[in-house]
Amino acid sequence: MHRSIIPSSHPRAKSLYIRELLVNGFRNGIVAPEGLIAHGRGETFDYLLGENTTETARTAIKAACSLLLLASHPVISVNGNLAALCPKEIVELSNLINADIEVNLFYWTRERELAIEKELKKRGAKTVRGIRSKDSARIPELQSERRTVDQDGIYKADSILVPLEDGDRTEALVKMHKKVIAIDLNPLSRTSKAAAVTIIDNAIRALPAMIVEAEQLKQKNDKVLKKIVDEFDNSKNLSESLEIIRCGVNARQR
Amino acid sequence: MHRSIIPSSHPRAKSLYIRELLVNGFRNGIVAPEGLIAHGRGETFDYLLGENTTETARTAIKAACSLLLLASHPVISVNGNLAALCPKEIVELSNLINADIEVNLFYWTRERELAIEKELKKRGAKTVRGIRSKDSARIPELQSERRTVDQDGIYKADSILVPLEDGDRTEALVKMHKKVIAIDLNPLSRTSKAAAVTIIDNAIRALPAMIVEAEQLKQKNDKVLKKIVDEFDNSKNLSESLEIIRCGVNARQR
Repeated sequence: MHRSIIPSSHPRAKSLYIRELLVNGFRNGIVAPEGLIAHGRGETFDYLLGENTTETARTAIKAACSLLLLASHPVISVNGNLAALCPKEIVELSNLINADIEVNLFYWTRERELAIEKELKKRGAKTVRGIRSKDSARIPELQSERRTVDQDGIYKADSILVPLEDGDRTEALVKMHKKVIAIDLNPLSRTSKAAAVTIIDNAIRALPAMIVEAEQLKQKNDKVLKKIVDEFDNSKNLSESLEIIRCGVNARQR
Repeated sequence: MHRSIIPSSHPRAKSLYIRELLVNGFRNGIVAPEGLIAHGRGETFDYLLGENTTETARTAIKAACSLLLLASHPVISVNGNLAALCPKEIVELSNLINADIEVNLFYWTRERELAIEKELKKRGAKTVRGIRSKDSARIPELQSERRTVDQDGIYKADSILVPLEDGDRTEALVKMHKKVIAIDLNPLSRTSKAAAVTIIDNAIRALPAMIVEAEQLKQKNDKVLKKIVDEFDNSKNLSESLEIIRCGVNARQR
């Protein structure tokens, strides 16, 4: 564990501690250097959102959990940043909603894929999909390393939770008629716009909130869950988050 | 040099190439892992600004260059990210405005300080200040590693250019009655608010623009330069940048 050198008097101490989780993940081979930059990109949106799970995000979380509970083959797609931020919660949520866990990396290396698998298994994951083999399948029309997916995982899934996703792949997955549930801090991103349900929140807060929500919704029948999904309007929800960000710019100015 | 794996079709290709400069800097021991995250934080503001040097930023650049040309002892404070993004321009600008170059790091290590010194000397810097010795001075009231400064550099300077600065140190330098010129992408940051002149722009664009501006202003007499400084209103300039960011949120929504 990397020793913290952040003065506790620092006004952004909480945000800097989360940075340290990422840097630790990087030192353990789980996070790509580019992943650290991507995290920072999200940090600004989080700062403008007030670094809290908004009511708007809670509405999306409810719809997301309902969709995942209704799915016949849900998958949680995991990249390095997510594994560094909340490995325990990934496993916990996957057990709750009966989802596969699949590693999928933009900056793929064999070492990183194995380091993430090891971390998730340490946290109790029984099976981790996406570790490349000759059986790997490919997402059509996608150029990046993320096109390689597990034949029995994402390739066959009907609903996929994609925290911290890139737009290219989200759009490709939607074209494959999959229901995509995104966790993204940028309501303007292509991922946010293309997903069926987008949770505008920091994954480090959204995943624990999803666990609480999924535990409650598991008690409900499919009709209730379907109603929640049908009543959810992703564009409207994104507009609300955007409005909160706009207000965040104003509030921080004062 | 790290081979680029970014597909040229990617809509954020330019921004991803800048990321690679940082990642290369990181691999060469110049950039701290936390610096990669900080860069990402700036990326979002740059995205909302339209990834261009705005007219508002150009006004600030003019005032910044005037202030630096009027100074009797200007210093350019360099951290890892700046050294990775534009080492050549740091040296070029320092020659133009007759400024010292001083290395100052939040996440200080001896190795990184020396790697940055080496990089700057490779780009033609004759003297690089701030390399720690028994003669190092300290900024009062500052807790972080950045408090250690060069006795004959920042400690004695009257004007300091601080690209990519943290708020604590900016405020401490202002308390020491130094004129601080900041380059920052967040118009809401404490650095932006505390500095005498804040350039809301990406340093990778601002430094070359400052070189062009300084070359022209060097021909002018002190009276002209003083008028430019006197007429510059930092709060007003920051409000304008904030308005551009607000419009950026709206424009990106469409």
